[in-house]
Amino acid sequence: MSQSPLQLDTSTRKDVRNRLLSVRGHMEGILKMLEPEGECCGPYCVDVLKQIKAVQGALGRVGDLILRSHLRDHVVTAQERGDVDAIVAELMEVLKYRS
Amino acid sequence: MSQSPLQLDTSTRKDVRNRLLSVRGHMEGILKMLEPEGECCGPYCVDVLKQIKAVQGALGRVGDLILRSHLRDHVVTAQERGDVDAIVAELMEVLKYRS
Amino acid sequence: MSQSPLQLDTSTRKDVRNRLLSVRGHMEGILKMLEPEGECCGPYCVDVLKQIKAVQGALGRVGDLILRSHLRDHVVTAQERGDVDAIVAELMEVLKYRS
Amino acid sequence: MSQSPLQLDTSTRKDVRNRLLSVRGHMEGILKMLEPEGECCGPYCVDVLKQIKAVQGALGRVGDLILRSHLRDHVVTAQERGDVDAIVAELMEVLKYRS
Repeated sequence: MSQSPLQLDTSTRKDVRNRLLSVRGHMEGILKMLEPEGECCGPYCVDVLKQIKAVQGALGRVGDLILRSHLRDHVVTAQERGDVDAIVAELMEVLKYRS
Repeated sequence: MSQSPLQLDTSTRKDVRNRLLSVRGHMEGILKMLEPEGECCGPYCVDVLKQIKAVQGALGRVGDLILRSHLRDHVVTAQERGDVDAIVAELMEVLKYRS
Repeated sequence: MSQSPLQLDTSTRKDVRNRLLSVRGHMEGILKMLEPEGECCGPYCVDVLKQIKAVQGALGRVGDLILRSHLRDHVVTAQERGDVDAIVAELMEVLKYRS
Repeated sequence: MSQSPLQLDTSTRKDVRNRLLSVRGHMEGILKMLEPEGECCGPYCVDVLKQIKAVQGALGRVGDLILRSHLRDHVVTAQERGDVDAIVAELMEVLKYRS
């Protein structure tokens, strides 16, 4: 795949980057909840768990942006480009169901 | 999409069908565990839960077979066929992350 | 765990069983979509995929019923019963995140 | 729940915090991949997607640590404490299957 530069388009890349900056901010907040000084009144497990789920959800939505962009820009043209097997194998690796 | 018959290929369809027959057999087994006569010694929650997870896992693997086949036969040719937007929107609907 | 019969309560067991009967009906419908006679106009991949996701979703909701019942009837009393380690290990095994 | 301080125990809190610091480092790496200067050779979609999945996986494992600790320290004693309904409802809210 090295000769065909199948890059993330600029607009999506910026959008993804901004969302990840926001996710990082969220992570900072969770780290703050877990700081040592709060010994006397550490966080409640379920509150931390909820914050972690929220971050995972935000990351899932970022992943969807990238996936949509990859499908639209690279996967639908694979037949023309002639790299169907590689494109499909690689995508299945990322998407496959884990039970 | 009705004019372009983007069907599941015969070989994948047979494979999927056989696997679903096996999943149905597994479901019958779970239903048996839950039958009324066992009142005195009904099943343990976690045993039923494990069986249900196993069925979900098997269905996930069947879904992957179909997804791979769809990518290979229909998605990678969307540019040539001219239905990129419809193909991508539809696929994202099925794949999108649920947090 | 064999001496302490931690069974699924009768009401939940009936509810679970009824829902699984309905899931089985749904599975029959998918199997019908995949029958050989439809060679000329086999099902569209994404339609089958959607049905499979719907079944997985229904099974997930059944799993939640069982989980809630297990938490309420068995997990919250583990300390009194004295099987905390076994109960937690077993539950984590079923719940753990798969990435 | 405000009168009963069901806190994350110190050892788990430290472990969780260290893992989240490592996850944050991973996020920094992804943000670097997405920096503007790389216009000529922006990242490949699937590479970013894989990194995001890896972060989600790491967060899932952190979530499991917290969940295990919550089960062991708070859920198994709910009957004795007398807050079964609240504990179960809250936990189901975080755990429930999303289809």
